[in-house]
Amino acid sequence: MKAFGKYLKMLRNKANLSQEDLANDCDISISQIGRIERGEINTTISTLYVLAKALNIEVKELFDFK
Amino acid sequence: MKAFGKYLKMLRNKANLSQEDLANDCDISISQIGRIERGEINTTISTLYVLAKALNIEVKELFDFK
Repeated sequence: MKAFGKYLKMLRNKANLSQEDLANDCDISISQIGRIERGEINTTISTLYVLAKALNIEVKELFDFK
Repeated sequence: MKAFGKYLKMLRNKANLSQEDLANDCDISISQIGRIERGEINTTISTLYVLAKALNIEVKELFDFK
């Protein structure tokens, strides 16, 4: 979860989106984005799809890290 | 979630594992495996890691479908 959150943060920065931008695009709260990025939330598949869509990538790309 | 479940089932069959085998390897119930495969459960990242490990694949490979 920590590694995932860190990678999500990197992808968000790469897409030049603030936590607020991503939160708005995903219709979830900024605090939830922050908690996901800190690895505090056990994100569900449906949220993964929403995040991937907002980042304009495929879900599998969210896990393209070691 | 439906597409994910269907793909998971295909991966499980490809690995020659029964729902019971996968459930035992993942330390989750057979009924939960069934519900995931039917797209009834909004699976979490931690479960995705456990499933991928049991299937001897990477998490991103769980989403390698269109």
